[in-house]
Amino acid sequence: MMSRLLPVGFAACIFFTPPAHAQTSPELPYQSAAHDIIVSGLQSCEAYKLLGELSGGIGPRLSGSENAAKAVAWGKETMERLGFDDVHLEPVLVPHWVRGDKEEAFVLSSGGDQVPIAMCALGGSVGTTAEGITAEVLEVKSFDELHALGSKVKGKMVFFNRPMDATKINTFEAYGGAVDQRGDGSVEAARLGGVAALVRSMTTRLDNVPHTGAMHYVDSIPKVPGVAISTIAANLLDSLLSVDPHLKVHLRLSCVTLPDAESANVVGELRGSEKPEDVIVIGGHLDSWDKGRGAHDDGTGVVQCLEALRLLNQAGLKPKRTIRAVLFMNEENGLRGGKAYAAKDRPGEHPLVAIETDAGGFSPRGFGLSADSVTFGRVARWSYLLGPIGAGQITKGGDGADISPLGNKGVPTMGLSVDSQRYFDYHHSDSDTIDKVNEREVELGAISILTYVLAQEGM
Amino acid sequence: MMSRLLPVGFAACIFFTPPAHAQTSPELPYQSAAHDIIVSGLQSCEAYKLLGELSGGIGPRLSGSENAAKAVAWGKETMERLGFDDVHLEPVLVPHWVRGDKEEAFVLSSGGDQVPIAMCALGGSVGTTAEGITAEVLEVKSFDELHALGSKVKGKMVFFNRPMDATKINTFEAYGGAVDQRGDGSVEAARLGGVAALVRSMTTRLDNVPHTGAMHYVDSIPKVPGVAISTIAANLLDSLLSVDPHLKVHLRLSCVTLPDAESANVVGELRGSEKPEDVIVIGGHLDSWDKGRGAHDDGTGVVQCLEALRLLNQAGLKPKRTIRAVLFMNEENGLRGGKAYAAKDRPGEHPLVAIETDAGGFSPRGFGLSADSVTFGRVARWSYLLGPIGAGQITKGGDGADISPLGNKGVPTMGLSVDSQRYFDYHHSDSDTIDKVNEREVELGAISILTYVLAQEGM
Repeated sequence: MMSRLLPVGFAACIFFTPPAHAQTSPELPYQSAAHDIIVSGLQSCEAYKLLGELSGGIGPRLSGSENAAKAVAWGKETMERLGFDDVHLEPVLVPHWVRGDKEEAFVLSSGGDQVPIAMCALGGSVGTTAEGITAEVLEVKSFDELHALGSKVKGKMVFFNRPMDATKINTFEAYGGAVDQRGDGSVEAARLGGVAALVRSMTTRLDNVPHTGAMHYVDSIPKVPGVAISTIAANLLDSLLSVDPHLKVHLRLSCVTLPDAESANVVGELRGSEKPEDVIVIGGHLDSWDKGRGAHDDGTGVVQCLEALRLLNQAGLKPKRTIRAVLFMNEENGLRGGKAYAAKDRPGEHPLVAIETDAGGFSPRGFGLSADSVTFGRVARWSYLLGPIGAGQITKGGDGADISPLGNKGVPTMGLSVDSQRYFDYHHSDSDTIDKVNEREVELGAISILTYVLAQEGM
Repeated sequence: MMSRLLPVGFAACIFFTPPAHAQTSPELPYQSAAHDIIVSGLQSCEAYKLLGELSGGIGPRLSGSENAAKAVAWGKETMERLGFDDVHLEPVLVPHWVRGDKEEAFVLSSGGDQVPIAMCALGGSVGTTAEGITAEVLEVKSFDELHALGSKVKGKMVFFNRPMDATKINTFEAYGGAVDQRGDGSVEAARLGGVAALVRSMTTRLDNVPHTGAMHYVDSIPKVPGVAISTIAANLLDSLLSVDPHLKVHLRLSCVTLPDAESANVVGELRGSEKPEDVIVIGGHLDSWDKGRGAHDDGTGVVQCLEALRLLNQAGLKPKRTIRAVLFMNEENGLRGGKAYAAKDRPGEHPLVAIETDAGGFSPRGFGLSADSVTFGRVARWSYLLGPIGAGQITKGGDGADISPLGNKGVPTMGLSVDSQRYFDYHHSDSDTIDKVNEREVELGAISILTYVLAQEGM
């Protein structure tokens, strides 16, 4: 795009500009406050600077790890530095799974060739013996297909190769349609005597980066390893199997689950000036997987919550009701932080709503809200304040994993919706690093405007 | 984000899914066609593959360069391969400016130290002698400030250091508020006897990458060099000047303007089956600056136009009116292609509308449209077809540089609006490479849906 005709090209995007200062009609409630928040945020882009400390400085922070402990300390110190009220830790015991120093897999062809496979253990997987496992491979696209194989599965590795459906516009929908393979693959393989699950990585991208994530076991079924393999490796394995169905895969993993570890949620707030007992919880999760550096998942959510309160302080906006930021621990592999927060007795408190940001630090599009119709209407009326930043879509149904235990107790829940196209390029992989985050996009997603209005007006 | 609670998180984004297949009410016109186009596009992501050929394979393609000629040949061959009708070139003479093999600048402190400055010549700048220029520097934030300096400017370099306003939500607005320094800086400096213009790069990002772009001269004013310096270099120079106002900058440039070169617009179409004389023009520009590889500016626009027609062919959708893709030459430094296209006599033809995509290959948000109110209303009614991909915002005022000459002749013009946050991180710099483009975002911006509906229904 050239410069000389800029005013013309600019006109095409005029809907992004805040109407408050572009129109002559009387200002609507909170437009001035919203404008001040936006301007102050974009001027400083402080969320990104905080992300530099958390994701860049501390790095990956899997529950129970030394880095997770550093993140807890950082969260508390940051809240204190920013002048939040009642900053404290709420202890929680978390699972402590470690990858160990060895994980490898390769294809062993019938002719004796070895072809390495880009892979990583899924979170929570058992390891193998030091010698590893070597077995033939059965490729399936679904559990139905697997179950139909019956006794043929015995002694085999099961290769789950149903891709995320790239034709879904919302990538979370594509993820939702494929992730059962990762979560349940090992159990379903072992149910039929399978010895391991090899799962195509959860991304629509064709690259050689494995994407980890949670998997689970059930007590009645033997525990067999589960690993993610890159999409390139999955395509390769599929091709090799088509010409050499008796090839074997060798797999070696040193991962292990240690005893639960002590950790904590980090909590701080802006105390309400008029109805402090009415509490709006905003949250993201401090923990991340051990691959990459937890930038989009969920470093951006954490810093957006911190930034939401910082921006209100900065603008001198005093909430009538309490806004509490909760940096949850252990979202990824246990949800212990979310459960503990909801289970804790908080006498005299009335939780109004819980809002989570955990879909990546991309341009905001709106909020999803799980609440009754009357409440929905009351919240949706504030959409005009979010329109200028492109986030005016208030839609029915919204949550976040950490706040779902609050939702189960009847608290209305909301989730920040963002542009989803890039999220699974990075998710749970070595690619989830801060260079994939744009400082303006993450800043615009700081959830301060809606949070403030709800603190003033209630739900 | 973990997996087990995915359906919950997914609900937050449900507004992104196409309503056509999610509701039980009768289908609205063209919903099925729009859905097919979206699915086919996301499945293949062909736009990105084409971009690999143009931006990755050919690279930068400044008007008059060998690469620009390759891009013209590629465009024609690609249109032919894709089965477009009446594929042809429309010749145009273009400016031929070359950077040459030498450009450098450094600060020469009063104490004799040399500090290199990351910089590049602005497009169209004159060069210096082989010895270069060494002069003191006056820093200003505006032309008013410059003019107030009067005779003090004589013999000095003028350092234009007004940043893009980061508080603007729409980055194009921030660009529009700063780019006069780049376009007019040399003229305004020379008007007062200044010997060169050093211009802060047009980006809100703090990095060490200079961003080039067009500048111009006027006949009555001496031509002095204009260069862009990185934002880090600009901050550095500002700091150094504050303690050493008599420092000098040494500047050497080998750039030169050669005689105009032969080039061409590349034109192909899907011939209308019922009203072929009614023509919808869709366009992007083939040329780019010589920094980076012209990925977002405007490789993505070019491939989106190609993809728009390919998707219609693929889906077996036969337009009633003609849809013509025009890959314009020389948008960046002359607009010769856009002017030539509009000036050419096309007997019997009736241009209905011209649509340009030249704001980067980011997630689409909608279209801006410059037309009378009745026409605007007729076009805006199709917004529901674009809502599922997040591009439903039809706003007043829209254009593109290449199609502005058509607009001047009374043809309604439209521009694709996209998420603008990242554009100026890359624009006109070495950072504008294909790794900054997401294959799904650029695909969703292929303008096939609206183009098709307008071809069927008229304006």
